[in-house]
Amino acid sequence: MKRSLLLCAALTGLCAAAPSPKPSRAPVEIVTTAPAADWSPIAPSDLLVMELAPDANGAARRVVIQLLPPPFSQGWIDNIRALAAAKWWDGAAVNRVQDGYVVQWGDPDGEDKARAKPLPVGLTMVNAADYAASASAIWPLVSVTVAHDTINTANTKTPIYLKDAYAETTLAWRGWPIGADGGQMWPVHCYGSVGVGRDYPPDTGSGAELYAVIGHAPRQLDRNIAVVGRVIEGMEYLSSLPRGTGDFGFYKTAGERTPIRAIRIGTDLPDLPRYQYLSTESESFARYADARANRRDAFYIRPAGGVDVCNVPVPVRQVP
Amino acid sequence: MKRSLLLCAALTGLCAAAPSPKPSRAPVEIVTTAPAADWSPIAPSDLLVMELAPDANGAARRVVIQLLPPPFSQGWIDNIRALAAAKWWDGAAVNRVQDGYVVQWGDPDGEDKARAKPLPVGLTMVNAADYAASASAIWPLVSVTVAHDTINTANTKTPIYLKDAYAETTLAWRGWPIGADGGQMWPVHCYGSVGVGRDYPPDTGSGAELYAVIGHAPRQLDRNIAVVGRVIEGMEYLSSLPRGTGDFGFYKTAGERTPIRAIRIGTDLPDLPRYQYLSTESESFARYADARANRRDAFYIRPAGGVDVCNVPVPVRQVP
Repeated sequence: MKRSLLLCAALTGLCAAAPSPKPSRAPVEIVTTAPAADWSPIAPSDLLVMELAPDANGAARRVVIQLLPPPFSQGWIDNIRALAAAKWWDGAAVNRVQDGYVVQWGDPDGEDKARAKPLPVGLTMVNAADYAASASAIWPLVSVTVAHDTINTANTKTPIYLKDAYAETTLAWRGWPIGADGGQMWPVHCYGSVGVGRDYPPDTGSGAELYAVIGHAPRQLDRNIAVVGRVIEGMEYLSSLPRGTGDFGFYKTAGERTPIRAIRIGTDLPDLPRYQYLSTESESFARYADARANRRDAFYIRPAGGVDVCNVPVPVRQVP
Repeated sequence: MKRSLLLCAALTGLCAAAPSPKPSRAPVEIVTTAPAADWSPIAPSDLLVMELAPDANGAARRVVIQLLPPPFSQGWIDNIRALAAAKWWDGAAVNRVQDGYVVQWGDPDGEDKARAKPLPVGLTMVNAADYAASASAIWPLVSVTVAHDTINTANTKTPIYLKDAYAETTLAWRGWPIGADGGQMWPVHCYGSVGVGRDYPPDTGSGAELYAVIGHAPRQLDRNIAVVGRVIEGMEYLSSLPRGTGDFGFYKTAGERTPIRAIRIGTDLPDLPRYQYLSTESESFARYADARANRRDAFYIRPAGGVDVCNVPVPVRQVP
């Protein structure tokens, strides 16, 4: 019996032993060979950079988060910029890690009104209506022809994922996974998405408490809580943290928390690399999405014929 | 501005500050109040128990995996039982942790034919046709009426999830998330699913190399690789491992691997607790699935009106 190649091809099709004739390209091959013109820059001003305390071996742990562009969640993002400018998170901590759900950070004393750290003046309480935006920017989409019954890139370069349990339409748009329905569009929760912790409605959260998704996409949170961005580098520093020992993944003791040294906007960090994303309006992205929905590289024997929006992560990289 | 309650209600609706009048029950409330008769026992003979080396503090790390029942993947599962009986995995290791994808364990020298550990005699190479089974056991389903356009439990206690990008039909059946299409049904890849690493087709893997999903459901693997079970306890010992330092999440050095002390079938472990799952054919499960698709508990302002099969994890617990 042959030895397992350990799933090395499951994501890449780049195993040394790949058989010939050459099958269709794997998604990662489409991405790595995409022309430079298909990559779009990410402005440092749209990056939120969290420096965790070094790990047990003294290695730095930097988490880079890309913030959403207009028309999404800008009220909360303005608050987040103000919190970063005020260095409000310096000395905060990761307080909660719930397996398969979220990692959450902010003021460890936030639940105790007597000890909670005061917020900077000038933050706004954003209305819950802003969990979504008007879909006029994308609607009506150019004529859509169904191919594979699940994804369409025939008459538009914007891939449309047609079968989704949570939204009438899901698509990749200007670099982000989006849901759309009834004249609205909204950013969806995927692995690595960053959102704003909040109290019960009508509270919508200030932005001082943030979370990142570390499990299967909790799409039930869409339009119930503000998505503000996604982790583009350093995700492993959040997802591999020890799980919380108390209810809902909160740590029972202060010593278990991971201290946050600082959170800054990218423009305040001269050493920050430049990043870019594969334009969701490019031919390369359309081919990448099609390949994610119809794996024909050597490892696969049966293409799925479909894909969900969170299983087509928008490629992001440091500028080569 | 109110302080964030840190999303404590996002999963449970059990926060102390929950407003009245009492909203609809959260999924976890439906589960915890389900009658004893709605819980089904899991036979110890259907459990695969992996004892990792203790953590840095000396604490034990036990991972409990429930194996699939017939008609699914029984050829690979027979191999797995033979490997456990032969104590083949004693001294094996977790060799790969790829963020957002899989944790994988087996023979660290498996890729080197000269050094690979011989497999026990008598293992079978299973045919790729066995990635799926005949759907005759579930097909035709009793008359389905669409409610909420996404989930139906009206005329059957088997919840059907109608919008899925990967399968014509997805459902919860005899305790497992299942895809069905064209007279076939198959176990799907969700967070925590356990499958069999393999080489390129026509290889289908022996069962000696196993992986667990630690990210968003990689449904493109369905019917391309054998799912054999799911982690029901100790998932955090896999999902929080340090991510691999090499390509595809493999560790570059032997010292980074997590040693496996032993893997045994549950019947060989007298101290193993008894487990049970919430019967997917029970009224409680139908209500739980409906609540997962339509969150109406206090934290939510807008029920999604739908859910995907991997976002309705089958509740499993130790027998109270």
